[in-house]
Amino acid sequence: MKIIKNGINAVAGITSLGKAIGIKKSGKMDFAVIYSDKIAAASGVFTKNKIKGAPVYVTKKKIKKGKAQAIVINSGIANVSTGEKGIKDAEEMANLVADELKINRNDVLVASTGVIGKFLPMEKIREGVKGIGNQLSKKNKAADAIMTTDAYKKEIAVNIGNVTIGAIAKGAGMIHPNMATMLCFITTDAEIPSSELKKMLKNSVDKSFNMISVDSDTSTSDMVILMANGTKGKVNIKKFQYALDFVCIELAKKIAADGEGATKLIEVNIKNASSKEDAKKVAKSIITSNLVKCAFYGNDLNFGRVICAIGNSNARFKEEKIDIFFENEQIVKNGMEKKNNAAKIKILMKKKKNRIFVNLNSGSYEATAWGSDLTLDYVKFNSNYHT
Amino acid sequence: MKIIKNGINAVAGITSLGKAIGIKKSGKMDFAVIYSDKIAAASGVFTKNKIKGAPVYVTKKKIKKGKAQAIVINSGIANVSTGEKGIKDAEEMANLVADELKINRNDVLVASTGVIGKFLPMEKIREGVKGIGNQLSKKNKAADAIMTTDAYKKEIAVNIGNVTIGAIAKGAGMIHPNMATMLCFITTDAEIPSSELKKMLKNSVDKSFNMISVDSDTSTSDMVILMANGTKGKVNIKKFQYALDFVCIELAKKIAADGEGATKLIEVNIKNASSKEDAKKVAKSIITSNLVKCAFYGNDLNFGRVICAIGNSNARFKEEKIDIFFENEQIVKNGMEKKNNAAKIKILMKKKKNRIFVNLNSGSYEATAWGSDLTLDYVKFNSNYHT
Repeated sequence: MKIIKNGINAVAGITSLGKAIGIKKSGKMDFAVIYSDKIAAASGVFTKNKIKGAPVYVTKKKIKKGKAQAIVINSGIANVSTGEKGIKDAEEMANLVADELKINRNDVLVASTGVIGKFLPMEKIREGVKGIGNQLSKKNKAADAIMTTDAYKKEIAVNIGNVTIGAIAKGAGMIHPNMATMLCFITTDAEIPSSELKKMLKNSVDKSFNMISVDSDTSTSDMVILMANGTKGKVNIKKFQYALDFVCIELAKKIAADGEGATKLIEVNIKNASSKEDAKKVAKSIITSNLVKCAFYGNDLNFGRVICAIGNSNARFKEEKIDIFFENEQIVKNGMEKKNNAAKIKILMKKKKNRIFVNLNSGSYEATAWGSDLTLDYVKFNSNYHT
Repeated sequence: MKIIKNGINAVAGITSLGKAIGIKKSGKMDFAVIYSDKIAAASGVFTKNKIKGAPVYVTKKKIKKGKAQAIVINSGIANVSTGEKGIKDAEEMANLVADELKINRNDVLVASTGVIGKFLPMEKIREGVKGIGNQLSKKNKAADAIMTTDAYKKEIAVNIGNVTIGAIAKGAGMIHPNMATMLCFITTDAEIPSSELKKMLKNSVDKSFNMISVDSDTSTSDMVILMANGTKGKVNIKKFQYALDFVCIELAKKIAADGEGATKLIEVNIKNASSKEDAKKVAKSIITSNLVKCAFYGNDLNFGRVICAIGNSNARFKEEKIDIFFENEQIVKNGMEKKNNAAKIKILMKKKKNRIFVNLNSGSYEATAWGSDLTLDYVKFNSNYHT
């Protein structure tokens, strides 16, 4: 596996576009299309929030048949809490793109991110769609156009043999005053049946996007889509899964590190849990604890907070077997504090990436989760905003 | 039911003490005893955190027999993550008090709150216990002595006919850098069998302390104890339950309002849910959302965040039936934004107590939860601290 440039457009048969059509008041890019020359096998993973954006309902339904040829995405307005009109608007947005590109309406997926409770400006979208057939290219502006509060665009591409996986993502948790959403669009020129695709995508999402948290709020619009257009033929499935995991984990880490107000990426490794589920529970309990997140912001590791979060995880373990390390420095042994080099830890904590490692010593399962610190800027940003 | 003064000491047959014995470096009070003339029926509710403080293990075991005569509490050190020595120290602390008061060792319960990972200074406790028999009185210093980061002491007492319920509590969530714990001690002179007591206490705790959240972190040391010494004889059980609910809810609200850095108390009422459990899930999901908490701090109600939190609750409801009110002002109707008096809401939000009311219109069950806003002071306090 080799990391290469050009994100989603590195994939054979894939072109895309990103442009401003006036949905965002700022005038920034707010409209993107991803297009595959051939109809691609496709699979998706969607938000588990019981209140879902209209595009989530529409795309979930469309992708059931396991194929797609294009995805249209807008930023600025999420099309959530918009009732039946919202559903019609999402459907029309996909249909407009299909008609303009002269492809089947059923093969165009749709996604939105931004403010909750507002209708899409359909006039602007009808105008904006005109001429997109000539605007699709190998320049990746789509990654820019799907951003809302993101500080930087998120993309990656890898080669496995002669096939390529390319992906773009957006999100920093549901962190903005009204904005929302984690979106990820992955393309590959490998040939993979859609049944297989579904399994592989779920595997990768479970260890990547499902293991990050900025603020524990699952947006109403989260969506990960994988399209495989088969241009480069078959691939070793094991190697492909490994590469897909890598792509998803890299983008997930970028999203966690871009958490609103975050000063650092926190990685939590759990080892030797009694089940996979237990390992995940402990990792997520630590990464979502406000007190732990504040401690990381203050560059002062507080083992009592980590112990408290482990205890709150509802996982099975024996307190007296817990060992905790910060990087390579052991801070807890057999469930009790261990004398450690506090000065060294304080220096290491100032780095942009902090890693904590918990050995439960009660099995053989592991899990890793990523998150960001809870900072003054997070609270400032999310309280100073006025609707 | 009538609210009266003197907290725990308003109850016939109950005396208490609070004093400084040198556990806290600040020299503030850190040692309390609550004593009943007669052996009382007793019941307790304890933290669900899987990692528990030593006093929780010791008191849980002792209270199984359904009776107690005294409770000894220290603040400053929580006696958590202290292994077998921690258990022995907690047992000795209770035994010292029993021997000094010449009562049965099995009838003294023990509780601790404060720093995790440190051993109790047993020499200071052995010294401090001397002479407590003469120090017990009707002056309620116990409420002061059990505080850690609390901004104010928390106590209440009520009369129902000729019997009295009195209670003291401490806590502001697990909000302090190393401190922890919600503690509540309730006494009554009513005569109630311990089997009945247990049921009644659980009822009250479920609608009060279990419905507040400052930062979603359940401490390792939470404990609520109810002692009924029977001095004033039998009581109407229904009226008593009502009064006990009131006592627990009042103290729970005081704890929520005292959340570290909090500028206001947030009350969330859920009405017409399809089950009790669903009502509770929605209430707690809203009250624990960092984004909702930031919105309240900023005095700018953001209905999208509330909708997102409802959707994340995993409760059953129909999106298109949701109505949301801030005080008496409706902001969401049938799952969509309703034009509202934003200026009026902004003024109301500046009050010390904010109430949000969600009508799910899908059943007949209700629940109420309380919490505090997420403020700059919360993050400052919990990140600036250095161990």
